[in-house]
Amino acid sequence: MGEAHGKSVILLSGGMDSVTALHHVLRTGSVAAALSFDYGAKHNRRELEFAALQAQICNVRHIVIPLPFLLDHFQSALLTGGEPIPEGHYEEATMRKTVVPFRNGILLSIAAGVAESLGAKELVIAAHAGDHAIYPDCRPGFLNAMSEAVRLGTYSQIELRRPFVSIDKAAIARRGAELGVDFSKTWSCYVGGPIHCGRCGTCVERREAFLLAGLTDPTDYESLDPLPPKPVNQSHHVDL
Amino acid sequence: MGEAHGKSVILLSGGMDSVTALHHVLRTGSVAAALSFDYGAKHNRRELEFAALQAQICNVRHIVIPLPFLLDHFQSALLTGGEPIPEGHYEEATMRKTVVPFRNGILLSIAAGVAESLGAKELVIAAHAGDHAIYPDCRPGFLNAMSEAVRLGTYSQIELRRPFVSIDKAAIARRGAELGVDFSKTWSCYVGGPIHCGRCGTCVERREAFLLAGLTDPTDYESLDPLPPKPVNQSHHVDL
Repeated sequence: MGEAHGKSVILLSGGMDSVTALHHVLRTGSVAAALSFDYGAKHNRRELEFAALQAQICNVRHIVIPLPFLLDHFQSALLTGGEPIPEGHYEEATMRKTVVPFRNGILLSIAAGVAESLGAKELVIAAHAGDHAIYPDCRPGFLNAMSEAVRLGTYSQIELRRPFVSIDKAAIARRGAELGVDFSKTWSCYVGGPIHCGRCGTCVERREAFLLAGLTDPTDYESLDPLPPKPVNQSHHVDL
Repeated sequence: MGEAHGKSVILLSGGMDSVTALHHVLRTGSVAAALSFDYGAKHNRRELEFAALQAQICNVRHIVIPLPFLLDHFQSALLTGGEPIPEGHYEEATMRKTVVPFRNGILLSIAAGVAESLGAKELVIAAHAGDHAIYPDCRPGFLNAMSEAVRLGTYSQIELRRPFVSIDKAAIARRGAELGVDFSKTWSCYVGGPIHCGRCGTCVERREAFLLAGLTDPTDYESLDPLPPKPVNQSHHVDL
């Protein structure tokens, strides 16, 4: 992989949180590589296009790690053998399909190995305050333990950095706007069609974020049906 | 992946430690799956043959997870951009090539995801007391933090179990002999030739283990040159 070109490795899904984190980190430091994961899923391919484009815009090296086993060994398993998932509002049915057990552990571990390989000192993840408790690998307790494991398990004691840990998605949208992020070149929708569906869990969350931030949403949605009410237990996966 | 067939998922490299761990765990419990990783490396292919064979002998489901990115993105990186590795005795030059930054974090994370998918409650790794401190992802501190991350990051609070944590490789050999393990059907050699070379770091360690255990070594070695003296800092990676 060659020499280090910066001190951070950042997880970049191509979603609005991680794209904003990339621009945010570049304001104060350098980035050795932006790292994306290719599960082979349809919406993941859409994300990857935007991840690649944003890395190019930022002049940052983009590394895509193929994870063929995730679809082969995990996804169907979750659907047939997983623990019951608490009921939520209807979008969660869509989101559930994309859940991979211990996904954040897997992605952070691989990213830690890449960071160590590149001589980077930090690993950046766009986990934020809106990441809720239903998914165990999104909880702060898990992220703290994983952070410790990454620090202790690497030669250079790599630090896991979570710049957005105390702000929510609307605040991330505002921060992105400040930084001049072109959100029309980010992807959230789990359906993975030609444009955002506007109805799935992540689209609803995206629309809400712009609305709450008081920003114009530049996204082209298939549907602009009224947003559903936010359920008490609404939760989502960390948008990497 | 279907229903759970046992309570443990075990990391099975095909080496003597993990093979003994498989037989050991089966004495007191059931195993949902034995998990191996295919890096595409030559010696890894030899290990995988024996991992598959041992799983078959034990009538345990064997899952091989392909990790093509490890060779693509990690190995050359380590050689050209890694942190300096402390000097040791000459076999370490061979072993160094197989080192993957944060490897145990990556393997344990993927295994945690598989365990959760299969409804298993435990993850078993054959880490032992002879695993020394040069490799950070072999240290007990790392394994404790990782254990916490796995517990907190999974729905079913999967426990990381290390049945051999307080015994060394010679004691593992003795335990294997008690259990009737056919060690001629395990693989250690990093060279990955048709038979064990007898000279590389892992072969030396294997030969020492049988010698110290007072057991006949059933392995066919290319060379039976006298074992080199054990250096003060000798260390090795966890034999998964």
